[in-house]
Amino acid sequence: MMEIKVELTANKKEKPASDKLGFGQFFTDHMFILDYIEDKGWHDPRIIPYQPISLDPAAKVFHYGQTVFEGLKAYVTVDNRVLLFRPESNFKRLNVSNDRLCIPAINEEHALEALKQLITVDREWIPSEPGTSLYIRPFIIATDPCLGVASSKSYQFIIIMSPVGSYYKEGIKPVKILVEQHYVRAVAGGTGGAKTGGNYAGSLKGQEIASRDGYSQTLWLDGIERRYVEEVGSMNIFFKINGRVITPELNGSILPGITRDSMIQVLQSKNIPVEERRISIDEILEAYHNGTLEEAFGTGTAAVISPIGELKWKDEKIVLNNGEIGEVTQMLYDTLTGIQNGSLEDSFGWTIKL
Amino acid sequence: MMEIKVELTANKKEKPASDKLGFGQFFTDHMFILDYIEDKGWHDPRIIPYQPISLDPAAKVFHYGQTVFEGLKAYVTVDNRVLLFRPESNFKRLNVSNDRLCIPAINEEHALEALKQLITVDREWIPSEPGTSLYIRPFIIATDPCLGVASSKSYQFIIIMSPVGSYYKEGIKPVKILVEQHYVRAVAGGTGGAKTGGNYAGSLKGQEIASRDGYSQTLWLDGIERRYVEEVGSMNIFFKINGRVITPELNGSILPGITRDSMIQVLQSKNIPVEERRISIDEILEAYHNGTLEEAFGTGTAAVISPIGELKWKDEKIVLNNGEIGEVTQMLYDTLTGIQNGSLEDSFGWTIKL
Repeated sequence: MMEIKVELTANKKEKPASDKLGFGQFFTDHMFILDYIEDKGWHDPRIIPYQPISLDPAAKVFHYGQTVFEGLKAYVTVDNRVLLFRPESNFKRLNVSNDRLCIPAINEEHALEALKQLITVDREWIPSEPGTSLYIRPFIIATDPCLGVASSKSYQFIIIMSPVGSYYKEGIKPVKILVEQHYVRAVAGGTGGAKTGGNYAGSLKGQEIASRDGYSQTLWLDGIERRYVEEVGSMNIFFKINGRVITPELNGSILPGITRDSMIQVLQSKNIPVEERRISIDEILEAYHNGTLEEAFGTGTAAVISPIGELKWKDEKIVLNNGEIGEVTQMLYDTLTGIQNGSLEDSFGWTIKL
Repeated sequence: MMEIKVELTANKKEKPASDKLGFGQFFTDHMFILDYIEDKGWHDPRIIPYQPISLDPAAKVFHYGQTVFEGLKAYVTVDNRVLLFRPESNFKRLNVSNDRLCIPAINEEHALEALKQLITVDREWIPSEPGTSLYIRPFIIATDPCLGVASSKSYQFIIIMSPVGSYYKEGIKPVKILVEQHYVRAVAGGTGGAKTGGNYAGSLKGQEIASRDGYSQTLWLDGIERRYVEEVGSMNIFFKINGRVITPELNGSILPGITRDSMIQVLQSKNIPVEERRISIDEILEAYHNGTLEEAFGTGTAAVISPIGELKWKDEKIVLNNGEIGEVTQMLYDTLTGIQNGSLEDSFGWTIKL
């Protein structure tokens, strides 16, 4: 067990109205911090009032992007229980990202314990209206004030929390996606499989181009052959073709999404065939032309599921399911959010009750 | 002209001894800051005492790596002039990086003016011993406290300065380099051509592996065919084969180094043949085996030039010039540092006198 110092705020913030939450714009009254210094290791766990971080302008995170993060959610059930969804998977993945970014591993059990205590302190911040949740953002930043290109010798592990509504302002209606032809998100051997800032920074340009053309997200193709589908925006992607659900295999450049994994397990439990394998944009186009392309959707913690209504690839517009939510997409959304918010039985053992 | 507010420090720091400088460990008494907010643009330029930056823990730089930077140097000449080396090129490149990272462009002339004023304020921090200089680090960070993956609506442009000795503790003696087989620094379509944190974060793992095996840097191959040479550590790379100097062409995944460009121009001025083109590790190996591989070196602002004494590729050790500095490498080092510190005439018009 880890002893966590707790300093409660003297000035609680006003809570935003549940219809004004948006995503990641409001933060709870407290945050968790854990420090790392070489030789001493991770130390001084503490819950303190939510406050600015003060860093030397030479801190490595500002220059060399040595940072990792996670995203997960807590829910209040109708009978007032607090549920966390697969938090061990997040802290396990955080350590995988840490390894790729040369950041020292955290103690996963201690991190979960810290998160539980933080949620307990800010319990009243978890919104309860349908579609809302408490988004949790654990992250690690390199703080060494030294400009040599090398791993930092000091870090901070921080958890902040934000009451959120739906990730997309439009709700879960199908979105229009632009297939990116010029920019690349990640390549095997790079950092695409880790949850680190650089992947997201590099994706902004594609997003900007998509937005300018009236599309809400970018579909990324592989960086080598520019043919194989990788991710959509910052989500994993699934296609339903001729009754089978296909998602790109984890090849090192794709983020191993926890929602992705959950969707695969739900599909298997419903006896819907699901394949993890390479899938090319040509295969999707062919399925579209021969009438077997039935549904497509993105998955991620923030949005849970995001149905795709249209894909634009070069001059071709691929319209999916007449721009409506597909049957399997809707079933997956209902099942996963049901388990997450406690309205459905969790036969997978994914939720943890606080 | 831009009016810069100046607040001088009341507590000047003690200056480190010139033999203890290292690289990027000590910082001058002041820093420059310029703010950006959407609608208002870049505003409020100011020189203030060097001090911590205070940011909301949700600031985008901590999560999504939206950050760019530059590196350049100022020198004191023996007759006490202060010279800047090609600063316009750095601010021009900063705007190229800004464009890739969806950060609003800065006014390059204003940035140079701000830098000159900052150097004037901290003039006494420029070290004068041979091999020393004032390393200048302009950088931009995304400060929006919002977790949606999107470009920030607010930024800070900051310049900090550090008196530095030689980048490598060992001085300019030839270093041993490990050719990386598994990890990739960047790929065309990604951010490799921009000076942004994520490229450096991703390179730490290769560096860690190289260090563990007794090598000081990583040589990066291209991410697609894993055959073509890209960069070495955080430097551009040059090979001299059979009297000709070859450096990888700017293909989008390589940083367009200002030192690289300067080296090419010096070589051309000395009538030494120089080629910018793809060069594979096989070609280097072949040249080694047939006795035509004469020299190899890395170039960058921090180190200026770093001769390569050995390259390890799989089981093969390629020893260059018996592990000694080559003639052309030495000439380039002497020429460039001579121009930079004012001991040689600057026929290229690269230096700017303050």
